[in-house]
Amino acid sequence: MLRKGGLRARPEIIAMTDFKVNGFKAAAVRSGIRGKDRLDMGLIVCETPAVAAGVFTTSRVKAAPVLLDMERLASGRARAVLVNSGIANACSGEAGMAAAIAASQLVADGLAVDKQEVLVSSTGVIGEQLDLACFEKGVPELISSLSADGLAAVSLAIMTTDTVPKTAVRCLEVDAVPVKIAGIAKGSGMIKPDMATMLAFIMTDAAVEPDCLRRMLREGCDLSFNRITVDGDTSTNDSVIILANGLAGNRPVTGESAGSAEFAAALNELLLDLALQIVRDGEGATKLVTIRVKGARSDAEARQAAETVANSNLVKTAFFGEDANWGRIIGALGRSGAEFAQEKVDIAFDDVLLVENGLGLGGAAEAAATEVLKRKEFGVNIDLKNGDCSRECYTCDFSLDYVRINADYRS
Amino acid sequence: MLRKGGLRARPEIIAMTDFKVNGFKAAAVRSGIRGKDRLDMGLIVCETPAVAAGVFTTSRVKAAPVLLDMERLASGRARAVLVNSGIANACSGEAGMAAAIAASQLVADGLAVDKQEVLVSSTGVIGEQLDLACFEKGVPELISSLSADGLAAVSLAIMTTDTVPKTAVRCLEVDAVPVKIAGIAKGSGMIKPDMATMLAFIMTDAAVEPDCLRRMLREGCDLSFNRITVDGDTSTNDSVIILANGLAGNRPVTGESAGSAEFAAALNELLLDLALQIVRDGEGATKLVTIRVKGARSDAEARQAAETVANSNLVKTAFFGEDANWGRIIGALGRSGAEFAQEKVDIAFDDVLLVENGLGLGGAAEAAATEVLKRKEFGVNIDLKNGDCSRECYTCDFSLDYVRINADYRS
Repeated sequence: MLRKGGLRARPEIIAMTDFKVNGFKAAAVRSGIRGKDRLDMGLIVCETPAVAAGVFTTSRVKAAPVLLDMERLASGRARAVLVNSGIANACSGEAGMAAAIAASQLVADGLAVDKQEVLVSSTGVIGEQLDLACFEKGVPELISSLSADGLAAVSLAIMTTDTVPKTAVRCLEVDAVPVKIAGIAKGSGMIKPDMATMLAFIMTDAAVEPDCLRRMLREGCDLSFNRITVDGDTSTNDSVIILANGLAGNRPVTGESAGSAEFAAALNELLLDLALQIVRDGEGATKLVTIRVKGARSDAEARQAAETVANSNLVKTAFFGEDANWGRIIGALGRSGAEFAQEKVDIAFDDVLLVENGLGLGGAAEAAATEVLKRKEFGVNIDLKNGDCSRECYTCDFSLDYVRINADYRS
Repeated sequence: MLRKGGLRARPEIIAMTDFKVNGFKAAAVRSGIRGKDRLDMGLIVCETPAVAAGVFTTSRVKAAPVLLDMERLASGRARAVLVNSGIANACSGEAGMAAAIAASQLVADGLAVDKQEVLVSSTGVIGEQLDLACFEKGVPELISSLSADGLAAVSLAIMTTDTVPKTAVRCLEVDAVPVKIAGIAKGSGMIKPDMATMLAFIMTDAAVEPDCLRRMLREGCDLSFNRITVDGDTSTNDSVIILANGLAGNRPVTGESAGSAEFAAALNELLLDLALQIVRDGEGATKLVTIRVKGARSDAEARQAAETVANSNLVKTAFFGEDANWGRIIGALGRSGAEFAQEKVDIAFDDVLLVENGLGLGGAAEAAATEVLKRKEFGVNIDLKNGDCSRECYTCDFSLDYVRINADYRS
């Protein structure tokens, strides 16, 4: 089932035994949405009420589960997340919303909790209706097979064009109390800053105040999922959901409390870890490239410059061709809207300076830069020398396989 | 030399004998910039002083010839355009500007005109220096071989990844006087609204007031070259230059004068003709697709919506796969920034309505839409039902060949 690609084999897949979080159980099943042989439905349950927060797609077109979760998360509490792949339940109208509510009701009934505490999440093809029969079959099976080891199976069930599951875990002490954060994610194409077609579910046993959890998740997403791009497209279903059950017994993290900074740092690190796993597994990707812009006049211009380079098809195909074609990078900077003087720009590939004050350094520098481009991971370091603002973002190369995957997907 | 592609064979190539414009001569030669076997340098000369105007890239990074032409065209007059392919003379610093000026001086000396009346234009790789020796060899050869039939050769000399030359001609009467407009263009990749990597040179024997010519060219570009996209990238060298020598003897077109509207209409038609030839010859393109958005709240939102769809890699790969995956279209609309309610959107492929009020019409409609997608040219008609503003733009599909061409180009 999994294609093999250049970046597909992660150096270290986290042992799933390290992946249990106190108070959480999960399971995945073959519900039939994607045929009889594929895991396509998952359930994550917290045995006790949990503080919850979510960050969702900025698209004007939001899938039914996104709209439902945004409404339900106003309470700041949740007990369960039901997720399916195969059908996005987007552009599905009233029937789609009714299906999302009915599916959550099945979980609520099975767990004897309020359906307002059940979140739902979907990924897959837009415009098709969910078949409730799959949930009527799948949800009881999910509930009967819940286990503390079940997250690994859920990380498989949410994959679409992903070739590897994406998981991360962090352990830390908050005010001298050991706590754990674990997360799973999916995403491979339709990925760009401002939330990509990706789902991520984060579980922690830390106690965190609801407002603080919401703010920390938002800030963490801005430093991770909102800095990655595969193809410049954004989806209708993007969701990052965090549940914090407090079973670790720490004094609740408030943002000011002892251990707040450590918790936020660990959460940010985990979110970035998941985000980079998505870029590494970008559709057709063979390289992970970090675009760093400094010397911009404003944060907004630093971001524009970095994202325009990161999304340029010409730049990304040159990465694939391992061609140190810096003209395409400066071309993308030129149309980005950022202010700068072309005769001041420096561009380096990792530590190889290739362009200085707008001029190419020629033969030897280009040969050295070409060697950098053969690496599976490298950075493009751009200095606009027009101010003090900077921005990093993460992209991949653009290969023949991207087109193959996306010309064939669905049909 | 020319790759064969689905759209590459134009239905009707205009006979080059129809292509002469009174008072203009042209020639092309193999100067050596691109090796000894390829036409790579061209010269267009007007035997009498001509009114001239130009529209240039909006990129902050402008090639030396663009900067030089912008300065020289302040006079509203020109006699000659020297163009080369192979090297863009962009990001080439003071040496690059000196080379552009020296090349124009060679033309000025050979023709015995002021160098301020000589425009220069380049296309090719960014960051390399022009070798003046190629001009010292090429310019005298160009001047000695100038002929009224020479434009066809220039249209070949400016090709880079183009697979066919692009030419267009229009004949009309202005205030009862016959006039002619002829144009050539190049462009295939790095093409997107706001001027693409493209060059176009337009010659007319009409008499036109300088201010009027400038305004008409700008308006015509907004309706043509600024509405096309191949890959969302913009170049450092984009230039559209028009020369009007007045030899037809009409009373000068002023914008108010008799025949002004007819002249503007013919010019617009010719510019759009050339622009669509560029999209049809888009790198790897097999389909020409017109994206039409109506019902937008403002012109700006109509444009944002149309361009976001036209530039979406996921939409364009679905066109290549002939997959009526309207979810990707509505996904692009959702992130475009245009205001609309998803439950109102209609989407049709040509006259096949596929989405009505945000919902897919299913089986039969999808089968019919899939048939439309098999056409080489079709339209995607989107109604946001949120206002009275509309916008058309033109794109192509995104094929494996796009990646092949751009991963290999240069290296």
